[in-house]
Amino acid sequence: MAKQGEKKGLDKAKGLSAKKSEDMSEWYEQVCLKAEIADFGPVKGTMVIRPNGYAIWQAIQDYFNENIVKATKTRNAYFPIFIPESFFKKEAEHAEGFSPEVAWVDKEVSGPGEKIAIRPTSETIMYHSYGQWIRSYKDLPLKINQWANVVRWETKATRLFLRSREFLWQEGHCVYETQEECKKDTINYIKLYEKLCKDLLAIPTIVGKKSEKEKFAGAIATYSIEGFMPDGKALQCGTSHELGQGFAKSFNIKFLGKDKKDHLPWQNSWGLSTRLIGAMIMTHSDDKGLVLPPRVAENKLVIIPILIGKSKDVEKKAQELKKELQEFNPILDDSDQTPGYKFNEWELKGIPLRLELGPKDLKENKVILVRRDNNEKQDIKIKDLKKQIPKILEDIQKSLYDKARKFLDENTVTAENWNDFEKAIKQKKLVQTNFCGEKECEDWIKDKTRGASSNCSPFNKKLKPKAKCIQCGKKAKMVMYFSKSY
Amino acid sequence: MAKQGEKKGLDKAKGLSAKKSEDMSEWYEQVCLKAEIADFGPVKGTMVIRPNGYAIWQAIQDYFNENIVKATKTRNAYFPIFIPESFFKKEAEHAEGFSPEVAWVDKEVSGPGEKIAIRPTSETIMYHSYGQWIRSYKDLPLKINQWANVVRWETKATRLFLRSREFLWQEGHCVYETQEECKKDTINYIKLYEKLCKDLLAIPTIVGKKSEKEKFAGAIATYSIEGFMPDGKALQCGTSHELGQGFAKSFNIKFLGKDKKDHLPWQNSWGLSTRLIGAMIMTHSDDKGLVLPPRVAENKLVIIPILIGKSKDVEKKAQELKKELQEFNPILDDSDQTPGYKFNEWELKGIPLRLELGPKDLKENKVILVRRDNNEKQDIKIKDLKKQIPKILEDIQKSLYDKARKFLDENTVTAENWNDFEKAIKQKKLVQTNFCGEKECEDWIKDKTRGASSNCSPFNKKLKPKAKCIQCGKKAKMVMYFSKSY
Repeated sequence: MAKQGEKKGLDKAKGLSAKKSEDMSEWYEQVCLKAEIADFGPVKGTMVIRPNGYAIWQAIQDYFNENIVKATKTRNAYFPIFIPESFFKKEAEHAEGFSPEVAWVDKEVSGPGEKIAIRPTSETIMYHSYGQWIRSYKDLPLKINQWANVVRWETKATRLFLRSREFLWQEGHCVYETQEECKKDTINYIKLYEKLCKDLLAIPTIVGKKSEKEKFAGAIATYSIEGFMPDGKALQCGTSHELGQGFAKSFNIKFLGKDKKDHLPWQNSWGLSTRLIGAMIMTHSDDKGLVLPPRVAENKLVIIPILIGKSKDVEKKAQELKKELQEFNPILDDSDQTPGYKFNEWELKGIPLRLELGPKDLKENKVILVRRDNNEKQDIKIKDLKKQIPKILEDIQKSLYDKARKFLDENTVTAENWNDFEKAIKQKKLVQTNFCGEKECEDWIKDKTRGASSNCSPFNKKLKPKAKCIQCGKKAKMVMYFSKSY
Repeated sequence: MAKQGEKKGLDKAKGLSAKKSEDMSEWYEQVCLKAEIADFGPVKGTMVIRPNGYAIWQAIQDYFNENIVKATKTRNAYFPIFIPESFFKKEAEHAEGFSPEVAWVDKEVSGPGEKIAIRPTSETIMYHSYGQWIRSYKDLPLKINQWANVVRWETKATRLFLRSREFLWQEGHCVYETQEECKKDTINYIKLYEKLCKDLLAIPTIVGKKSEKEKFAGAIATYSIEGFMPDGKALQCGTSHELGQGFAKSFNIKFLGKDKKDHLPWQNSWGLSTRLIGAMIMTHSDDKGLVLPPRVAENKLVIIPILIGKSKDVEKKAQELKKELQEFNPILDDSDQTPGYKFNEWELKGIPLRLELGPKDLKENKVILVRRDNNEKQDIKIKDLKKQIPKILEDIQKSLYDKARKFLDENTVTAENWNDFEKAIKQKKLVQTNFCGEKECEDWIKDKTRGASSNCSPFNKKLKPKAKCIQCGKKAKMVMYFSKSY
């Protein structure tokens, strides 16, 4: 990330100076900054989520609490940010996976005892409590979700929302009597994530299982949803992990079964983060700025009276409309800027619909509605607004999804041999291929292609692996997607 | 705090072993642990907020977002947890106030640059951004709220919710053109806090201005709401600070006024925390366990079928009632425990209403409703339940407030001379007296009474200071409340 303040000179009225198709990285940063979604924090690699950005996160939280937490009888809770070092050492793979990026509390404060970590993820601290709380099968399933900030001291270059040293997320952690129940729920959660991306953020994703190389440190299997960004890179939008009984063993979680004997339970964990906001911005926004899917837009509508100051009637009607259309939480921009300036500003900020009202419109009892996503204009009778606006908003939502889906489909390529595979990766495609599943083979592919990694092996049962692995020629065990990734 | 796990042996079926009137501290801890509101974290001084506790926090958040954030046109945002050391040094009083309890990130991680603090409060990091964002009077007022965890490395004994090294809170930070507007809003926020405590948590508080000694580090004035707990100690439930222009100066926040000249703006900050949950528990709960005001109770009702397993009709009707009474989010306890066991368990957990349904009741088309707050039983016709339950719940809510209000009033004593003052403090009263306002005088009082401190000088205009300060005999400038405090 650039230092906060470096971009201070940006003039929001001027809009974006970078183009999405030419320099996506610079374009993305400008959208985040100029639409006032985010800013850089003063400590390297940290970020501020500004009100326009936090409103998106709240829309995700509200959807999530209703459709995922409540619907699956999960409950929210909060565990400490401080974790004793010894907890990380209890599960070897997990410890190894996270140790390079853990931030610790200064010993001068925490004292001479063991080191204290600032949470990078909460498996260990939650399961320590679970070990004390769970006694019998009657306590299961235990399904807890936490909304929290987590810290990973990234050494790679950071980017707003996509990679930062602190980010916000939810992490769900459940415990079950049986492996079947656990696996079923693990897959259910990832499918609910897919639905959230589709229904709320209009982002199509591929849902499937991660490779051995890419799975979570300490899991027996990881499932993920993968978005595919307009610059030809995949972006992991959420994961769900089958943890088996490893953590239960390490943290001494046992339950007395119906058979009156002690058993080890089965566990999963699942999370998505503010990274989703980045995925949403990259997927839909354009050279004019942010494009917000209506369902996440805090303000669905901006009302712009034309000839302000010259027509009292227009001003009055605009104020009336703001009240009448309250359900869409409209912004009324009656400032003294020119209409052109206002159009640019609210396009930059991604408001889904613009309502223009001039003296001529008023005379005809109509307004002009302009869609942010495709700039389409239409005259609507004032009396029809309440009925028409929801339809148009839903159409915008659907169009955004369809457009992104089309991009994903058109950029998915099936490779049957290594030459085609390499070529497709070079062309920044999402490559569907046959894969043996071995870590060594994947290492080789990544090395040879300068960075292509596996995304996930799709749940889609129509996709079946053919005879041989694309690279090593051994028997293919799965269909796998490969691409460059965020 | 005791270490997690020490209380592991607690048998929830046995209820509380401590009495509120005899050992409030032990009683309070047992309520938190046995009602599964909270648990101790593995790092000393940290705590876990369990689902039963987090549901209370969510109820506070929901009320707050609607009635305070939205109603005052404030917007939520999120700033980094990591703050450069130099930021704290910019405002001298603020730095001094917080330095003893700041936790830092280990240098091995953060590198050789300046030290990085884990936020104890966010004035400095937010105002750094404000300095970059605010350009003209058109950007004002800027009103931002943040929901976050904060860390204060307490060296005093910690207690669940009341004092812990990490806690959850909201902090609002606003910037205004004029001092008048700023002061008005600062007072408005503290009054909204008072209303939240009253309307949602049924906690009466005194609202007023803190003394010079007790005000916030860096503020020109601090306002607070003060609860009075059953053990005769005041508990500060929320504060709101007029910050003047000091931070604006230190963080270079300026705005171009309507007069085309640069001006320093005026600022305030205001916060309340999970401490409120502790205040609520102490205020209402009893020797049977938690008592939840209905408006914060996630489940308003528990349905207990009597003679389970012996009457299919009762079981079936209980299930029907669970559906029919869905708006109260009822728990149906059809486990194989005895009714007595169930009564104890749900009383311990504070469910406001118990619905008992036996074969005899069913025959008469009625149920027995039992109030958690006063154990009152009443027969209600099944067909009247939907109409009667909301009334009873509102009556419980009101009764809890009235009872707490009565306690506060009966324990408030006016002291006109030093002897009466000392006596009242010894009797654990809330003492209303005449005060000069000087820090030295307050230091003397605290020392002499072994710990009585000023709470606040009430807004209530009927209370006017009389001739002389209770201690020093100088001219009294205000009426002030004094007591022992949490």
